[in-house]
Amino acid sequence: MLAIVSLVQGKRSQMRCRKCGEKAVINMRQHKLALCTAHFLDWVPEQVEHAIRRYDMFTHHDRLLVAVSGGKDSLSLWDILQRLGYSADGLYIGLGIDGGVSYSVNSFEYARSFAQEHDLKLHVVDIPAEYGESIQAIAMRTHRGHYKPCSVCGLTKRHAMNRIARQYNYSVLLTGHNLDDEAAILFGNTINWLGPYLIHQSPVLEADKPGLVRKVKPLCRMYEREMAAYALLRGISYIHDECPFAKDSTSIYHKELLNKLESDRPGAKLNFYLSFLRARRDGLFSSSIDDQAEFLHACPECGQPTSAPGLCAFCRMFVQVEDRPDSGQLMDHDHTQLEK
Amino acid sequence: MLAIVSLVQGKRSQMRCRKCGEKAVINMRQHKLALCTAHFLDWVPEQVEHAIRRYDMFTHHDRLLVAVSGGKDSLSLWDILQRLGYSADGLYIGLGIDGGVSYSVNSFEYARSFAQEHDLKLHVVDIPAEYGESIQAIAMRTHRGHYKPCSVCGLTKRHAMNRIARQYNYSVLLTGHNLDDEAAILFGNTINWLGPYLIHQSPVLEADKPGLVRKVKPLCRMYEREMAAYALLRGISYIHDECPFAKDSTSIYHKELLNKLESDRPGAKLNFYLSFLRARRDGLFSSSIDDQAEFLHACPECGQPTSAPGLCAFCRMFVQVEDRPDSGQLMDHDHTQLEK
Repeated sequence: MLAIVSLVQGKRSQMRCRKCGEKAVINMRQHKLALCTAHFLDWVPEQVEHAIRRYDMFTHHDRLLVAVSGGKDSLSLWDILQRLGYSADGLYIGLGIDGGVSYSVNSFEYARSFAQEHDLKLHVVDIPAEYGESIQAIAMRTHRGHYKPCSVCGLTKRHAMNRIARQYNYSVLLTGHNLDDEAAILFGNTINWLGPYLIHQSPVLEADKPGLVRKVKPLCRMYEREMAAYALLRGISYIHDECPFAKDSTSIYHKELLNKLESDRPGAKLNFYLSFLRARRDGLFSSSIDDQAEFLHACPECGQPTSAPGLCAFCRMFVQVEDRPDSGQLMDHDHTQLEK
Repeated sequence: MLAIVSLVQGKRSQMRCRKCGEKAVINMRQHKLALCTAHFLDWVPEQVEHAIRRYDMFTHHDRLLVAVSGGKDSLSLWDILQRLGYSADGLYIGLGIDGGVSYSVNSFEYARSFAQEHDLKLHVVDIPAEYGESIQAIAMRTHRGHYKPCSVCGLTKRHAMNRIARQYNYSVLLTGHNLDDEAAILFGNTINWLGPYLIHQSPVLEADKPGLVRKVKPLCRMYEREMAAYALLRGISYIHDECPFAKDSTSIYHKELLNKLESDRPGAKLNFYLSFLRARRDGLFSSSIDDQAEFLHACPECGQPTSAPGLCAFCRMFVQVEDRPDSGQLMDHDHTQLEK
């Protein structure tokens, strides 16, 4: 209970729920809002539903696929979707990351358990089993990311998410990116003024080209701290370790800077992100710099859409490997059939 | 000498000038460059000349007016212009700020002494004498800036600078904004995504409308630390106090955040600013959001250009004051005629 109580900042003992006057468990300075457990657990799904509608993410008629990592954000998102009455299946992508903490093994266990407990369908892609190599092994022999696996990992996950969503006819792919994630990505793109990345960062990535599945981020307005509190108060078991390769990453560094800003100016992080979305909606950026407007064609190896002249970036990572297993084989499980 | 020596960071005793091998007095991590006094004092004007040409700021045929505050940046700029062979007069604007440190009195004394020592012409505008009120007094009775004088001060300085430049036929107005100033302004505009401010922030503000004088910032690529070192090593006497009202200002807070970023990632501040200028040059922003594209007309009171329907923003601050002195009277001095 200590961890929960410590969510309340400042005058802890005097803090009361704004809705019922009971003792508050969380104080959100950015919203000038303190809530008790029950009202907080109602408030979070309300906020997520608001974002879903605000950005026209999806309706109850869509077929939803949630990318679940075993972390607090994606599992909480899956939980919230259920509570809001949306039917959504899960997708876990096993990357073969150990890092001394059995990262992939443990994170899969959290995702699998959640699916089992809630009687939800979970697709599983096991990258080492399918492609014969872990993310680290691929990163070690490619130039992508200077032997740090984050770039290979991102590419692999995007490839697998789009592949499974298409294969099983999901209309929308959901990820658990929270406000802290989005603000840190935006900060990194802004501090270097990366135009094409700036104009494409959005709560909704439209399926505006053949072969691309619509991607949405329903937690984009939720602070990481709010999601941690939600998972804790809902009793959701999740992996607490960060990915061992995320340590010293630029995005974590940017998160720390934004946390400093947020702690001095509550609401600054949300304002940074929302004012960006508003400015873009109001026409700040010129569409002429959109370098992703080019034609996409199907990769001759995997069939996924790509703007590259031949193989897609994912398949190019494997062209020098001769004896890799057939990549056409997909492991698909619901919770009663899971196997690793 | 202690202050100078302390400019060298890191392996101080081993640091050698890259150009001559003598003991270095400054190490600029962002440029991977350590220099001795003589070579640093040559390097700074070279960098400023590079910026003047890079951004087509002015030529030796222009009539230059430098806004001098008595601080290190503007006095160093005036010094550098002389060394580069440009002929430039100065403009000091007395704002009547005391703040317990006789700020205006002292800063004027530094500006006046510099002009006298170097036999340079200095125009002086004394706001309290001309308009009957100090900046603080005006701020106290207006809604502009919530009784904090910074907004009133900025408006007053812009008004006076343009007025004097036009009156004496200067073709270019120069200010001493350094990289830290520019990066902090950009950061503030970016963190709130203030589109119209973003698209107009530039080393050169063109005189693209009748009545506006071209404004340039030749120090926009120079770190504040470099300018402090320059003033120190050139023996330029300047006011060390910050303006007493600048304390706790948002721009100083943003400077501190950027200093943290810079200390962890040397060069980050310069990269933030330069990548912004590049992105804008390459067409990142849409011109459709330019809200300053409207028609300007002459203020019926002062004759300065304004987009407001009647009086300009500066003159509007005085409409409720009955007995103010004639604002048409300008005090103009060269260094032999100075009087307060």
